Amino acid sequence: MTVAFPQSVSVREVGPRDGLQNEDPISTTAKVELIDALSRTGVRRIEAVSFVHPKAIPQMADADDVWSRVRRDPRVRYSALVPNLRGAQRALAAGFTELEVVVSASDTHNRKNINRSTEESLAELPELARLVHDGGGTLQLIVSTAWGCPYEGDVPVERVLWAVGQGVAAGVDSLAFGDTTGMATPTRVTHLVGDTRSAHPAVPLGLHFHNTRGTGLANVYAALQLGVDDFDASVGGLGGCPYAPGASGNIATEELVYMLEDMGIDTGVDLDALLAVAGLAEQLVGRKLDSQVLRAGPRTRTAAS
Amino acid sequence: MTVAFPQSVSVREVGPRDGLQNEDPISTTAKVELIDALSRTGVRRIEAVSFVHPKAIPQMADADDVWSRVRRDPRVRYSALVPNLRGAQRALAAGFTELEVVVSASDTHNRKNINRSTEESLAELPELARLVHDGGGTLQLIVSTAWGCPYEGDVPVERVLWAVGQGVAAGVDSLAFGDTTGMATPTRVTHLVGDTRSAHPAVPLGLHFHNTRGTGLANVYAALQLGVDDFDASVGGLGGCPYAPGASGNIATEELVYMLEDMGIDTGVDLDALLAVAGLAEQLVGRKLDSQVLRAGPRTRTAAS
Repeated sequence: MTVAFPQSVSVREVGPRDGLQNEDPISTTAKVELIDALSRTGVRRIEAVSFVHPKAIPQMADADDVWSRVRRDPRVRYSALVPNLRGAQRALAAGFTELEVVVSASDTHNRKNINRSTEESLAELPELARLVHDGGGTLQLIVSTAWGCPYEGDVPVERVLWAVGQGVAAGVDSLAFGDTTGMATPTRVTHLVGDTRSAHPAVPLGLHFHNTRGTGLANVYAALQLGVDDFDASVGGLGGCPYAPGASGNIATEELVYMLEDMGIDTGVDLDALLAVAGLAEQLVGRKLDSQVLRAGPRTRTAAS
Repeated sequence: MTVAFPQSVSVREVGPRDGLQNEDPISTTAKVELIDALSRTGVRRIEAVSFVHPKAIPQMADADDVWSRVRRDPRVRYSALVPNLRGAQRALAAGFTELEVVVSASDTHNRKNINRSTEESLAELPELARLVHDGGGTLQLIVSTAWGCPYEGDVPVERVLWAVGQGVAAGVDSLAFGDTTGMATPTRVTHLVGDTRSAHPAVPLGLHFHNTRGTGLANVYAALQLGVDDFDASVGGLGGCPYAPGASGNIATEELVYMLEDMGIDTGVDLDALLAVAGLAEQLVGRKLDSQVLRAGPRTRTAAS
């Protein structure tokens, strides 16, 4: 069996947004410190903030303030997540040009998350895409609960593909699938990615895995074999899982980078620098994070003999 | 890309041995309780004890006593690990017919572990194999530090293949590779397994991964694609890593079973029963174990909506 892996992978660091959104609130200064430290690791993309209603997610209430204070590195692409038109207007006004809109494939999760049905969220996409494009930006559609919903269980692949089709018709620039509570396994990844590629071969596709059930890097490996070269991860594994106390959330960026670099796949990230930021992240949130590579160090770190 | 996965996988539960060996000592009664509970999960193989010098590994000093009190299930194959001839004699005398001898590919680790060089350990294999076969048993050679050594770092594939070749020449019945401190990544797995298969296509091969750096299940997935259908795992992830305090040890059996069963690969194991035993294991050792599936539950367990 010969498999051609991508030569490089574009890692999007989502710790400052998806990670911190699921931690106890930290200060604006601490958020800026985290983003600035990440900017110096060589990572090429950082999801910096989200523009959501402060009552829904108080952790992101200071998004404008955070962004105005970040020391922006011209080598890094910063993005903002938005749930709707109002959020997109705020993100554009703040100067973001790379926006992501998140819609859950499962109705129950979308209602819990943004208080309307999946269909209602999708119906807004054409206007949202127009707004972002008129503002000189790009819009990614992130379909979350793509491999399962914590309320509904399995989500039919057909439903995910329906949401994707609505986004492509609306003119989004790229797609991503979110494994919101870590329900993906490698064969499920292969199926959904394969079907999406068949339907929309020209649309860039990124994947966002959680390690809630330990399969995060196995899912990445399965996706690499299909040529996927765009993955989200969270420094230190920041975030946890709001549906299962004590369980892991996002795959840890340093675990992703460790595996990819050892496989000869370039990420641009300096692993030692990233591990230092993972240590900083632990200090900022005041708890031990789930990252194994943070605990054990990279394989090149030997014990005193 | 079409990949033929095995239809079923033979899981060897190593929690009572490799797991407990790296925990604070627990009572004989507790060990028997753990093994008996595992016997009722549907798992087909359990590595029950090791016959090592009690000064080297006090956690296994009561191996004879444990084994005499285990309620042996005729559907389960129980095995014992031995470091040398003396251990093999004890294991055979205790009635074991399935023995594993462990030799580290890296000299430093073998010396730390059993106080002699890799070459000295390998030189004993012909006599050891003869002893076991004369006693009506089978002998597996486990080559540990197969993907790296905590003292020496990288271990050349050629050295691992040399150790394997010595074992095959000595007449061992099967082989296993131990990723002692979780230094394997998927491409390294593909290379070593591929080279071993080319050299010894008829010798059964099992793999023993640790999740010390988060790549455990990704390594399993890579090996499945090469047709490997024999994996070790430890209930709850019992064991930890003696070289990195707080880091994970063996891959957790319930994470392995969860992923395999969701991929349609039969293991014979009842996942709910296994999760109950993982909870028991936490109680017996008195600490929170690293298993993600134990924390979050299988993907079929939904939140109250």
